[in-house]
Amino acid sequence: MTKNKKAAHMPYGAYHKTTIPAHDPELASTDPGTPMGEVMRKQWQPVCMSEQLTDVPKAIRIMGEDLVAFRDRSGNIGVLQRHCSHRGTSLEYGIIQPKGIRCCYHGWVYDVDGTILEMPAEPKDSKIYETVYHGAYPAQERDGLVFAYMGPPEEKPAFPDFDSYHRPDGNKLVPMSAFHTCNWLQVYENIMDHLHVGLLHDPSMMSVEGVDASEIKDMDYAAPMGFTEQPTLDWVPTRNGNGMCFIACRRNPDQQTVWVRILETIFPNYLQIGCTFPSVRTSRRSQTVWTRWHVPVDDENMLVIGWRHFNDEVDPLHLGREEDVGLEKLDFLGGVVGGRSYEEGQRAPGDYEALTSLRAIAVHALENSGYSDTGVYMCRKLLRDLVQGKTPSHKSLQLQEGDENRLHTYSQDSVMNLPKEPGKDDHEAMRGLGQQILQIMQEADGVPSNNREEYIHARFDELDGGYLQAAK
Amino acid sequence: MTKNKKAAHMPYGAYHKTTIPAHDPELASTDPGTPMGEVMRKQWQPVCMSEQLTDVPKAIRIMGEDLVAFRDRSGNIGVLQRHCSHRGTSLEYGIIQPKGIRCCYHGWVYDVDGTILEMPAEPKDSKIYETVYHGAYPAQERDGLVFAYMGPPEEKPAFPDFDSYHRPDGNKLVPMSAFHTCNWLQVYENIMDHLHVGLLHDPSMMSVEGVDASEIKDMDYAAPMGFTEQPTLDWVPTRNGNGMCFIACRRNPDQQTVWVRILETIFPNYLQIGCTFPSVRTSRRSQTVWTRWHVPVDDENMLVIGWRHFNDEVDPLHLGREEDVGLEKLDFLGGVVGGRSYEEGQRAPGDYEALTSLRAIAVHALENSGYSDTGVYMCRKLLRDLVQGKTPSHKSLQLQEGDENRLHTYSQDSVMNLPKEPGKDDHEAMRGLGQQILQIMQEADGVPSNNREEYIHARFDELDGGYLQAAK
Amino acid sequence: MTKNKKAAHMPYGAYHKTTIPAHDPELASTDPGTPMGEVMRKQWQPVCMSEQLTDVPKAIRIMGEDLVAFRDRSGNIGVLQRHCSHRGTSLEYGIIQPKGIRCCYHGWVYDVDGTILEMPAEPKDSKIYETVYHGAYPAQERDGLVFAYMGPPEEKPAFPDFDSYHRPDGNKLVPMSAFHTCNWLQVYENIMDHLHVGLLHDPSMMSVEGVDASEIKDMDYAAPMGFTEQPTLDWVPTRNGNGMCFIACRRNPDQQTVWVRILETIFPNYLQIGCTFPSVRTSRRSQTVWTRWHVPVDDENMLVIGWRHFNDEVDPLHLGREEDVGLEKLDFLGGVVGGRSYEEGQRAPGDYEALTSLRAIAVHALENSGYSDTGVYMCRKLLRDLVQGKTPSHKSLQLQEGDENRLHTYSQDSVMNLPKEPGKDDHEAMRGLGQQILQIMQEADGVPSNNREEYIHARFDELDGGYLQAAK
Repeated sequence: MTKNKKAAHMPYGAYHKTTIPAHDPELASTDPGTPMGEVMRKQWQPVCMSEQLTDVPKAIRIMGEDLVAFRDRSGNIGVLQRHCSHRGTSLEYGIIQPKGIRCCYHGWVYDVDGTILEMPAEPKDSKIYETVYHGAYPAQERDGLVFAYMGPPEEKPAFPDFDSYHRPDGNKLVPMSAFHTCNWLQVYENIMDHLHVGLLHDPSMMSVEGVDASEIKDMDYAAPMGFTEQPTLDWVPTRNGNGMCFIACRRNPDQQTVWVRILETIFPNYLQIGCTFPSVRTSRRSQTVWTRWHVPVDDENMLVIGWRHFNDEVDPLHLGREEDVGLEKLDFLGGVVGGRSYEEGQRAPGDYEALTSLRAIAVHALENSGYSDTGVYMCRKLLRDLVQGKTPSHKSLQLQEGDENRLHTYSQDSVMNLPKEPGKDDHEAMRGLGQQILQIMQEADGVPSNNREEYIHARFDELDGGYLQAAK
Repeated sequence: MTKNKKAAHMPYGAYHKTTIPAHDPELASTDPGTPMGEVMRKQWQPVCMSEQLTDVPKAIRIMGEDLVAFRDRSGNIGVLQRHCSHRGTSLEYGIIQPKGIRCCYHGWVYDVDGTILEMPAEPKDSKIYETVYHGAYPAQERDGLVFAYMGPPEEKPAFPDFDSYHRPDGNKLVPMSAFHTCNWLQVYENIMDHLHVGLLHDPSMMSVEGVDASEIKDMDYAAPMGFTEQPTLDWVPTRNGNGMCFIACRRNPDQQTVWVRILETIFPNYLQIGCTFPSVRTSRRSQTVWTRWHVPVDDENMLVIGWRHFNDEVDPLHLGREEDVGLEKLDFLGGVVGGRSYEEGQRAPGDYEALTSLRAIAVHALENSGYSDTGVYMCRKLLRDLVQGKTPSHKSLQLQEGDENRLHTYSQDSVMNLPKEPGKDDHEAMRGLGQQILQIMQEADGVPSNNREEYIHARFDELDGGYLQAAK
Repeated sequence: MTKNKKAAHMPYGAYHKTTIPAHDPELASTDPGTPMGEVMRKQWQPVCMSEQLTDVPKAIRIMGEDLVAFRDRSGNIGVLQRHCSHRGTSLEYGIIQPKGIRCCYHGWVYDVDGTILEMPAEPKDSKIYETVYHGAYPAQERDGLVFAYMGPPEEKPAFPDFDSYHRPDGNKLVPMSAFHTCNWLQVYENIMDHLHVGLLHDPSMMSVEGVDASEIKDMDYAAPMGFTEQPTLDWVPTRNGNGMCFIACRRNPDQQTVWVRILETIFPNYLQIGCTFPSVRTSRRSQTVWTRWHVPVDDENMLVIGWRHFNDEVDPLHLGREEDVGLEKLDFLGGVVGGRSYEEGQRAPGDYEALTSLRAIAVHALENSGYSDTGVYMCRKLLRDLVQGKTPSHKSLQLQEGDENRLHTYSQDSVMNLPKEPGKDDHEAMRGLGQQILQIMQEADGVPSNNREEYIHARFDELDGGYLQAAK
């Protein structure tokens, strides 16, 4: 590499740069027994959509493990190892039972926890009933997604419930899932890579001459929101390094108010994205438009799977289209899911093309990183600390079964009053404001859930002199 | 595995069972030089159907060897190594000659034994004529199948002729072949796995709720025959361990007669299947409805290839359909050949789905075997002894070229008189009967072919007091 | 192999010949750092057709390197490493700029030499501008082909210009390209394998009975030209072993004149083919109908890419069809490009079938070579010497940038007067004539370009007594 790097400092120097180093398995690999795989298995992960569970089982592959998911006729969700414990026939050909699933070959029936319920070709007193369980993972459904816990049984955490799922009242979680032909990490990192948004998603820059960007479905959303203005940016570790966020501040045209956007990722593979509609420039405390997990199928394939939130806070003008959200589809951010033709992808590339083409597994050793990559490199550093066991736990993520407090996310968008002052460094002013917003969000962790919103709004009002009230 | 096995004894324990051990190459692998490959090469094997030999050569792959099969214009069958001995062009692009086949590149012509007949671009006195033979295997056709002998030339056996091919008079051998995307062994073992028949092939158990089993082509045959009644079963090695059979006895509804079914496999990969029609419950000495070989294409693909027998003994009511037998088709046992859609396979799985989905090569080390697997495990044990050279030969399989005696199979179905006696263990009684039937079949080996049927019938009559005659 | 070879000397001996040795990587492999790859990289290579450069970039793969080719909107040709130097997004999704290409992810713009022109998400004074060049190769277009130089920058040669491109006046170079699913070498060698021409390309021999050869598009050209007559042949190294040629002499039916055909390959992967129309039997000094390079895509795929020459010297009767020359098409030599169905290939095999079916990489160790392979083996020997550094350079290939002299090829077809003399060995006479022709061509190297044709014609006239003039 040294030779390569040095020789790279010349025009027409490709001859000296043909070595392709290995990828970074410590972060990228999630098969059983890998460090990142162990970390990821200790959290509930969505593994498919509820609509994929029909009257026949669904073969799925998660973190390199071949599994089968099904809903038995009593409504219980099973996520089982794919191959029957008897001789190995795939349970994707199993027959769903009133309780459990029956292997088609010799009729063994497994309950969703792996208990053998029937072995019709074995004696009724077979010892196998006592000695064998089929490999099963705890599973449950929520709002159209199927979740499994694939970690050590004794470390199973409570199923996390985030505040954003419940606000505002009437928020609707609409499930979606998008298969990607690449490693999970390069899609996950992409959020902390905030500066690409104003570039990749600016069709005036990123479409072929002659292509009318406004006619490409859902491509033309970044400019109306103002994403093409470069923000004042900070990247900040959160929760002792168990998460991180970016704080992006952009001044509104009124020169008086500032749009503060915070997006938080919670490690290893969770994140929530805020408003993606122009209303963001006038709203306060709108929170999540898209909750997503980044779930490895195996090292070279992954799912972006989660919920699109429909509510008046993130989309007061009802610009979203629920019918365009689901399996392999999303109603904004054209090109974020695959399925377009190669030619379409070339003419108006989106996240899908930019990310899946970073090789099947991106090669970090070949990168030349700059300012725009600050968040991505911080993300990798924090993930590496996490898999190496260097990251202390944080009370904000410790939820006990039955606990009424919900987890809070710091993701949010708010317009704050901060008149531009001549002679003052406006970037520093905005940066300070953003950090104060994050600080208020973090301090709100200590406030009981039912008072939390009130508390935050009061602190925000205090911070900007009650601008919103005054404006009304 | 020990750790895995122990940890398996808990519900939701998949986390402790993610290791996938290797398959068993001693039995599964048949490439050149492998132990099982050597054993299999010492017998004639069918390699394709006659109808696949047209005016162009047929590229085939057998036991990992790339070959080409053809019928020259004199009618001679050639099975040659695929790549020309000169420079390597594939003979699948060769031109079939009045005698032999001509490579398209430089025109070398090979006879079916590998002799070079012409090298038009070489001098007429080229020494190559004397020093090079193209790699060829002895080949012949019989009843629509093409057979090759791929073993050491000096050990070539006579082409085996089984009694079942000739009985009753007028028996018609109709060829068929079905490609499977899995190892050969898991399909072969399936016959000694008799107990799956009443489960996998019972569509009332093995189809998705709402699917009308009677409407699925050829799926609904097991129940009318009574296969869904669990039989009294024995598994018995035959011919010093060069074969094995199961003896399945089921009592008829008259409580007086018993259906004795014997199916014999002859190692390493041959077997004959008996009657698959309801008439089996009243017949005597019906023998073979399907002769099959289990021929590896390579370690992860195989052919079930053989003959469907059409005769009045196995199908007195003429329920079979000859037009549905051939390349990738069979007229009973729905789902035994591939070609159905994935969804069809999920809704009404058959042997094809159950067997090909046992991974590409089944992993024996992950199995949890029970009573129903007794035959499968005996089969593997006997095959292992065979490849390790521990199995003595048996005179019943020693056929010399020109020998008029034919090989005999013990496969047969017979209804015998054995009234149910109150207070007596009926299973033991049936088991004893079954063993006597097998013993008579074995003793009949010493009887000349032309007297054998008479001898067997007499012994059967003696055994059950001439019940059939009396019934008439 | 010894055992194998010995055992091969028997009919039906395939059992002893199942070992498949490795291919010959010293000649076949061209990935970065391989000996042959290094040799090939030191010459300009065509990498795609100009028509493949549109308003979106073209992903190409050359010698195992993933690249992208494009023409920027100023008309400059770029051949860049495919993955962006920033984070690795494929530049096949890049947006072509007025100058250079813009990566779609963060908008970095690269000039065709790899200079970074823009990094919109980086500070304007980023040091990356000074320290990083993207991997680029020098590239240029000529007559519809795109060429790149992929070797060490300091050894870049002048772009070679051959005399044949310019003669006769008005010669038109029409580009073509044909993808092959095999190693490059087996397609390259095929030219020195002259004797296959009268066999593979004789449809009366190489088509299935019942196929009307004259109806197969472009298959029936060898017989009218007389290629099916076996020639008197010589194979001769040229230019100190940096090339080689065959000299094929065939007597015309008049028993007075002889057709002398010389085809020269220049190593490692260049060659020019002479006239492929019946007029060759009466012409003199017609030169090139097809200039081709044999460019590895990777070790198991390659391009035949070059120019079809249209001029009155090689095709005085205008039998060629320019509209049938281009991407995956050529207007003669049916079957030389792929794209036909498998069945068509079986019924009337062409070069494509004969060559691609020599395994993905031909296995030399399995060959049984004879007289017809003399040229192929000489070609391999000379290539091996070349990659091992044993071949001295030759002044005829040393062209300096700006040099007005063009490179000369020895390929040509000429009819010469050489009456058949009874009692004299006609083969020896023809062989002597052919060698004299080659000698004249070589001696003409020393003659300035503008006098060269005149010189050659005079020497030819001197050699055969001015036969042509007299005939007129």
